Amino acid sequence: MRFTTLKLDSLRDLLLEELRDLYSAETQLVDALPKMAEVANSGGLKAAFEHHLEQTEGHVQRLDDIFRVLKEKSAGETCEAMKGLIKEGDILVNAQGDPDVRDAGLIGAAQRVEHYEIAGYGTARTLALRLGEKQIADSLQATLNEEAEADRKLTSIAEEQVNVSAASRAKR
Amino acid sequence: MRFTTLKLDSLRDLLLEELRDLYSAETQLVDALPKMAEVANSGGLKAAFEHHLEQTEGHVQRLDDIFRVLKEKSAGETCEAMKGLIKEGDILVNAQGDPDVRDAGLIGAAQRVEHYEIAGYGTARTLALRLGEKQIADSLQATLNEEAEADRKLTSIAEEQVNVSAASRAKR
Repeated sequence: MRFTTLKLDSLRDLLLEELRDLYSAETQLVDALPKMAEVANSGGLKAAFEHHLEQTEGHVQRLDDIFRVLKEKSAGETCEAMKGLIKEGDILVNAQGDPDVRDAGLIGAAQRVEHYEIAGYGTARTLALRLGEKQIADSLQATLNEEAEADRKLTSIAEEQVNVSAASRAKR
Repeated sequence: MRFTTLKLDSLRDLLLEELRDLYSAETQLVDALPKMAEVANSGGLKAAFEHHLEQTEGHVQRLDDIFRVLKEKSAGETCEAMKGLIKEGDILVNAQGDPDVRDAGLIGAAQRVEHYEIAGYGTARTLALRLGEKQIADSLQATLNEEAEADRKLTSIAEEQVNVSAASRAKR
């Protein structure tokens, strides 16, 4: 979000603010996911990050389309929360030690990102519905469903693969 | 999370990292919630923030207890993601315009915080279970349930009160 005083006269102002925050978040994530995919030790996790990168590029495209419909600009803000989330991801990308434990940490960082987006898209979708922008709300819901699916997929990778491998070798 | 190279030799190392991140997040939130309660226009939202502040103080206490059980220190890290989330909340605290629209924005910011914590506690609980730390996992689950309940409560305030008031006065 922006760092000048924000002026919110209408729900439309707030919707634009939320959409620009999400736009910044998604574009930051497009840059971060390849690094996470590169260092992932588990093949399943690597594939999940690569698949989610493709989805994330699609989410940016959907937001571009929404801004076009609203006749507004997408740019101009930095999502500070996503900046922090990605800093945390970078620490894991650069971590040393057991590769399966690092995978478990990468999953935790990625799930924080997914949950950030789930909350953000949920708010934006509810605002769009309230403003009678059904087409925009449907587009936001489509992305929200994909973020929730990505989160579930990460949980299943953590439970079925990574934590099991890491625990079997853990020095407690 | 920390800004020196992280070393993860075991799931226990990762659990401690996750717990310290949550500890920093919760203590930052204890400082931020009173400001959000103060500026909230809706009485229901103000009460929800005040109630969640009490809960958050309890979450810090639970984490203190967990560190005591593990015989480890709680401190030493700054959760960068929560720093960003709170920066975004501050922008809304200081925003000008329609107070009901600002309330809707505050709810969106608070739900991002809740989702961050839901993801973090979910990861920590799964790690604790994997390490056979049932008592710790139960304590983390108790907090997780309260975060999820706080998130649902915010959704219902947004849908039932704030967005309705804001939309009825919105200049579109």
